[in-house]
Amino acid sequence: MNHIQWMGRELKILDQRKLPGQVKYLYLSTIEDCYRSIVSMQVRGAPLIGVVGAFGLALLAQNIEEKSKKEFLERIKKGAQYISNARPTAYNLEYCVNVVLTSIKDQKNIEEMKKEAIRKALEIMKIEEKNSRRIGELGETLLEDGDTVLTHCNAGALATVKYGTALAPIRIAIEKGKCIYVIATETRPAQQGARLTAWELSEDHIPVTVIADTAVGYLMKKKMITKVIVGADRITSDGYVFNKIGTYQVAVLAAKHQIPFYVTAPSTTFDLCITHEKVIIEERETKEITTIGRKRVVPKGVRVYNPVFDETPPRLIKAIITEKEIISPPYNKSISRMFSNRVYKKT
Amino acid sequence: MNHIQWMGRELKILDQRKLPGQVKYLYLSTIEDCYRSIVSMQVRGAPLIGVVGAFGLALLAQNIEEKSKKEFLERIKKGAQYISNARPTAYNLEYCVNVVLTSIKDQKNIEEMKKEAIRKALEIMKIEEKNSRRIGELGETLLEDGDTVLTHCNAGALATVKYGTALAPIRIAIEKGKCIYVIATETRPAQQGARLTAWELSEDHIPVTVIADTAVGYLMKKKMITKVIVGADRITSDGYVFNKIGTYQVAVLAAKHQIPFYVTAPSTTFDLCITHEKVIIEERETKEITTIGRKRVVPKGVRVYNPVFDETPPRLIKAIITEKEIISPPYNKSISRMFSNRVYKKT
Repeated sequence: MNHIQWMGRELKILDQRKLPGQVKYLYLSTIEDCYRSIVSMQVRGAPLIGVVGAFGLALLAQNIEEKSKKEFLERIKKGAQYISNARPTAYNLEYCVNVVLTSIKDQKNIEEMKKEAIRKALEIMKIEEKNSRRIGELGETLLEDGDTVLTHCNAGALATVKYGTALAPIRIAIEKGKCIYVIATETRPAQQGARLTAWELSEDHIPVTVIADTAVGYLMKKKMITKVIVGADRITSDGYVFNKIGTYQVAVLAAKHQIPFYVTAPSTTFDLCITHEKVIIEERETKEITTIGRKRVVPKGVRVYNPVFDETPPRLIKAIITEKEIISPPYNKSISRMFSNRVYKKT
Repeated sequence: MNHIQWMGRELKILDQRKLPGQVKYLYLSTIEDCYRSIVSMQVRGAPLIGVVGAFGLALLAQNIEEKSKKEFLERIKKGAQYISNARPTAYNLEYCVNVVLTSIKDQKNIEEMKKEAIRKALEIMKIEEKNSRRIGELGETLLEDGDTVLTHCNAGALATVKYGTALAPIRIAIEKGKCIYVIATETRPAQQGARLTAWELSEDHIPVTVIADTAVGYLMKKKMITKVIVGADRITSDGYVFNKIGTYQVAVLAAKHQIPFYVTAPSTTFDLCITHEKVIIEERETKEITTIGRKRVVPKGVRVYNPVFDETPPRLIKAIITEKEIISPPYNKSISRMFSNRVYKKT
C-alpha cells in the first residue's frame, strides 16, 4: 500500500472516503486540489494532512507564472494562509506549510524557490515516515506480550506516511514477536475506526475487533482492554491533547479503570505557541450524523451538534510517545525541555 | 400517535425499524408474530416488549384448539417459555408474560382462561401507561426550569405504551411550563436516539439536539448538560441497572462531571430474584455494526463484538424514579422495602 506518493509533477493519494469498499487513487496537481482533498477528508489524519498541505504549497510554487520575486512571494504567502485554513484543529497542517513557506523565503530567486518548495515537501514526507517508525520503536517498549490495545479513530499508516502513530508501536511489537490484540472503536461520526483502522490492520494480518463507541466502558469494566493508545491532532505547550471527538471520554474511562492511556505524536503535532483555551474545535456538517449512505437517520428539522475533536487534559495521560523520546508528566516542563531548540516560530 | 393498540383480534404495532423514514403499522395475530416483532426490534423498549409479550401469550390462548385443560395449559406454559426467550436482558418481558401465565392458571375452564388472558394483557397495557404518567409526575419534581437533559437510547413513548420512562419527566415538566432542552445521543449501533427519541420529541415539538455517542464527555466538560435521565431494561435486587450499551460510560462521565444521573423504570423492570452477576447481556448480530443501510462499513473478515446492554453499578445512580416513589441509595434496602408486598415469584 502506498497511499501517498509524489509522482514528479503531481501528488498521488488514496481516496480514504471510499474505503473500505473501494481502493481509488486521485492525482492532485494544484493547491486547490490539495485543499479540497483535506476539507473533504479524502486525506485525513494530522501528520498526513501536514504532508499534503506542504505539497499543496509546493505545487502552488510550481504553478505561479509571476516574474517578480515580491509578487511571487505574496502569492505564496496567500497560498500558505489558504491551505493552512483547510481544517482548523490539527497543528501539523499549519506547521508543515510554514516550514515550506520559510524555506521558500530563504531562496535567492524564483527558480530556486520552486525547486526548494518540492525538495522541502519531500523532506517533510520522508521525516514523517522516519518519525512514525521511531514512535513505533519507542512505543513498543511500553507494550507487553498479550496486551489488548484499544485505539480510537485512525492513527495508523493511513493517517501518516507509513506505520502510523498509535498503530506504529503495535506494528513494531508484532514485528518483534509480541502477541498484541487490537480493539478499534467504530469512531462516529466519520467511522475512521471501522473503515480505516480495521482495513489497514486486516491488510497487514493484525488481529482487530471493531466495537461501537458505546461499548468502550463495558469492555474496560470486563477487563478486556489492557492499554489505550491514540494519536493527536494538536498538543499544546501545557500538555492538552486535541484529538478525534471521543478521545476525552476514552481517557476518563481508562483512568476510572486504571488502564494506561498513551498518546503518540510526532514533533509536528506540538503547538508551542498557544495553550489549550485557544484551540479551535472544528464543527463539521450535520450530514455526517443525519445521513448514513443514502439513508436519513435523524428526522428532518431536528438539530444536530457535530464537534469533531475534543481535548484531553494532561492529568489523564500516562505518557506521550514522540519520535524523540517518551515524555511524562508534568508535560508543560517535559514539552518545553524537549523543544528547547525548536527553530520554527509562528509567523 | 398510537404505536400499540389492541384491535379485538390482533395487536396493531408501529414498525419501529422503519422510523423515522416511514410510519408503517403491522398486525400481529399469533404468538409467533409477537416473538418475531420483538426479536427483530420492530418493537423494542423494556416496558413495550413486556406488553407485546403479554399479548403474545394471550393470542396463543385464543389460537389453541385443545379441548383438555391439562393439554391447553401445557401449550400455554411452553408458549410462555418461548416468548420470554425472545430477548434475554429486559426483565419486563419475562415478568409480564408470567403475570398472564399465572392469571390463566387461576381460571376454572378453557373458556375463562382465554378471556382472562386478553383481559390481563389489556390490564398490563393500561397499567404501563398509568405507570409512565406517574414516573413523569414524580420525576418532574427533579427537573428545574432551564435544565438540559441528556438521554441515551430511547426510553420514550415508543419504548412504553405512552409518555415513556426517561422522557416522561421531561414531558410533564414541559406541560407544567418548565423550559427543558434535550440532548439525545445517537446510540450506536441501532441508533434509537437518533431515529426514535429525536422523532417522538420533534413530533411533540420538544426541542432536541442529536449528538454522536463520542461527544458525551465533551459536552459534559463544556457544561452543556445539567442532568442525565435514562431508562432501564432490568434492575436487580442489589440496585444494578442493565440498560442499552453505553449507559455505563455515560454514568461514569456524569459522576466525573458532577452531573446527577437518574434512572427511570416501572416496577415491571425490577428483578428481585437475582443479583447482577447472573444477568445475561444480549449480543446481537455483527451486521448492526458492519453494515449501515446497504453500505458495508467494516471490511469483510474483520471481527466485530456487539454486546447491546451494559450494567451500571448503584454507586453511580443518584436516584431511581419508579411509579411508586423515587428511591435513593442504598438501593438494596430501598428496593426490598418498596417491593415488600410483591406477589409474583419466579416460577
